[in-house]
Amino acid sequence: METELPSIFSAKRTSFVRTSVIREILKLTVKNSDILSFAGGLPNPNLFPREILSSVMESVIHENLSTALQYGDSSGYAALRFQIIEKLTDVSWAKSDSTIITHGSQQGLDILGKMFMDSDTNVLLEDPVYLGALQAFSPYQPNFFSVPMEPDGPNLYWLEEILSQNKIHVFYANPSYQNPSTYTWSLEKRKQIAKILDDKEILFIEDEAYRYLDFDGKVYPSVSSFRNKKELTFILGSFSKVISPGFRLGWVLVPDPYLSLFTAVKQGNDLNSNQFSQVVISKLLEVMDFKTHLQAIQSFYQEKKENLVSLLNKHLPEVRFSLPEGGMFLWVEYPKVSSKELMERCIASGVAMVPGTEFSPASLSSSFFRMNFSFLDNNQMEIGVKRIAKAYRDINT
Amino acid sequence: METELPSIFSAKRTSFVRTSVIREILKLTVKNSDILSFAGGLPNPNLFPREILSSVMESVIHENLSTALQYGDSSGYAALRFQIIEKLTDVSWAKSDSTIITHGSQQGLDILGKMFMDSDTNVLLEDPVYLGALQAFSPYQPNFFSVPMEPDGPNLYWLEEILSQNKIHVFYANPSYQNPSTYTWSLEKRKQIAKILDDKEILFIEDEAYRYLDFDGKVYPSVSSFRNKKELTFILGSFSKVISPGFRLGWVLVPDPYLSLFTAVKQGNDLNSNQFSQVVISKLLEVMDFKTHLQAIQSFYQEKKENLVSLLNKHLPEVRFSLPEGGMFLWVEYPKVSSKELMERCIASGVAMVPGTEFSPASLSSSFFRMNFSFLDNNQMEIGVKRIAKAYRDINT
Repeated sequence: METELPSIFSAKRTSFVRTSVIREILKLTVKNSDILSFAGGLPNPNLFPREILSSVMESVIHENLSTALQYGDSSGYAALRFQIIEKLTDVSWAKSDSTIITHGSQQGLDILGKMFMDSDTNVLLEDPVYLGALQAFSPYQPNFFSVPMEPDGPNLYWLEEILSQNKIHVFYANPSYQNPSTYTWSLEKRKQIAKILDDKEILFIEDEAYRYLDFDGKVYPSVSSFRNKKELTFILGSFSKVISPGFRLGWVLVPDPYLSLFTAVKQGNDLNSNQFSQVVISKLLEVMDFKTHLQAIQSFYQEKKENLVSLLNKHLPEVRFSLPEGGMFLWVEYPKVSSKELMERCIASGVAMVPGTEFSPASLSSSFFRMNFSFLDNNQMEIGVKRIAKAYRDINT
Repeated sequence: METELPSIFSAKRTSFVRTSVIREILKLTVKNSDILSFAGGLPNPNLFPREILSSVMESVIHENLSTALQYGDSSGYAALRFQIIEKLTDVSWAKSDSTIITHGSQQGLDILGKMFMDSDTNVLLEDPVYLGALQAFSPYQPNFFSVPMEPDGPNLYWLEEILSQNKIHVFYANPSYQNPSTYTWSLEKRKQIAKILDDKEILFIEDEAYRYLDFDGKVYPSVSSFRNKKELTFILGSFSKVISPGFRLGWVLVPDPYLSLFTAVKQGNDLNSNQFSQVVISKLLEVMDFKTHLQAIQSFYQEKKENLVSLLNKHLPEVRFSLPEGGMFLWVEYPKVSSKELMERCIASGVAMVPGTEFSPASLSSSFFRMNFSFLDNNQMEIGVKRIAKAYRDINT
């Protein structure tokens, strides 16, 4: 906090509120447009379905305006909930009534934190972890545990160790093209961990915001689809990466016993999700060829990824990373530098990326950086990588 | 809750989560379109600025799409924050940096609950109170106190009594055209209470969602504008009643010392507000004649109010209410019946309104009902009032 709080008070939980360094870096890059940024997680605007959106808006304005401009059901717009079940889920128990529309999957995380996390709740995270989850959960003051991640999913030895020594209540994970690491759980680990979660009766929050960003168009079955204890399974999805973050819409598949409570919490949070955007996305899904649209995103990101990979190989052979199967990031290890120093030098030289420590509950990942490849064009990317290379060598010589 | 929760657990705060009877009644009226509903709080769709909206959408799609479809600043869209300061606020300290855009003023309430309410926080409410505030605050488990309301504001005798006997930390109020009572604090009480709040160093949450719904176009100065202790003052506003609830946008004026914390909590809640809708509303405010638009809303609601008043006088002379200065409700006392019984009989006869007990922290208001006049057309209103009259007399004979 920059300024001191008035002497009066604030709630105890606010001492656990975290700010996002990423958003601070983003602000910096907005203020100073000379900074080339690998720091964000912005979808490439060329992939927004512009043309079709224009005709969809037109039709919403002429045919659905009274609905679109009114208050709506706290659970969400019925047609959209139905389409999610038809097109975007793979668990057998899910029905449109189980689907609650939220303001991004981020709001799903806040609601689940509110529903399940007290100071005596033990929550297992991946390390590294999606930073937004830490921001959403922290004010509810749970005890965090974390399992080290490998390119094919959680390290099973450590997972078993943690679970045998502690009563874990909730496991939050991002099994497909994780932000920040882009690591993706293998099919084998999905099955094994689903079984472990069942045996230990652990509530699982499966964040599938990146589910459809596989470079080859592959879609992994969700971990939850292998679980028997479906009443302990929540799956989060998002339209931000496959349509646009500007509509701020996502959803949560909620098992029956928790539906009323989830909806009541959503209602207290903000009554209902943006009705206009829900109607627009529903119409969009009706008229657009969603498969072809996804393929366009997937192959665009693949090309971008290959570009960044070859630039790093050429200009920074010292760094290490595993090749991701999808997503919008490389998780890059820069050996033998302090990440703080490298970040500062990078920003001074007009290039930004996010230090891995930001994403690490146990402060591992100290030599890693998250590098986004979805936003810069190829020319900017080359200049950016050269700037990083120079900053890196300036430290290492 | 309809179904039992799994035996495992949920956070302790969830036992304080409240559902809204209003939303249950609304669902009923959606399912059964024969029910004439005085229960909702829906703006009349005839007042949405349709034509101009269509051209604004067109221009956003052609000129601002990359911004409108992208992630945005957690504080909100800069142009819109500036317009709010220009047009929609009266406190001298407010600047565009103090204005944080939220998903409805409801989200502002949730964030302020999260920021300020623990189990040892004493929160003073109006009685009756806006139900959404109870829903937002309850999960944070503060201790609620309440001051009885009169048509011109809080009863000062009881206010002083409560404040002298208890250390009140937060006062939440809805001073203009309150939902549900439509009571409006007089200028005199605004000044007096501002002074009391300063003397007692009480943090004030002033909910101004209905501010511009005065039938004569009058705009009361906010209570906060009379305070000296501006660092203990939060003002909530909303576009739901003056433009459309479908965009789910409101704002909070946040005093400097709390700006970073408020923004960080907003970020954890849902990253940022719907960017597309923010750009649309900003453009709309740029091109529309907002004053004329407000006048149209105000005179439309005045006519609606007069219609309901004359119908009640004609068909139900037994009931009592004070004439509101604005807003979209009448707060009507039905003497000598159980409100539960009257509500059940009304719904069985095809008409709905909300029992006052729903809005009463201390379970006062037991013979009151909230009757909305903004939504039904005059013909439906007459049929509705006749159905209520019959149900009322069936009990009272």
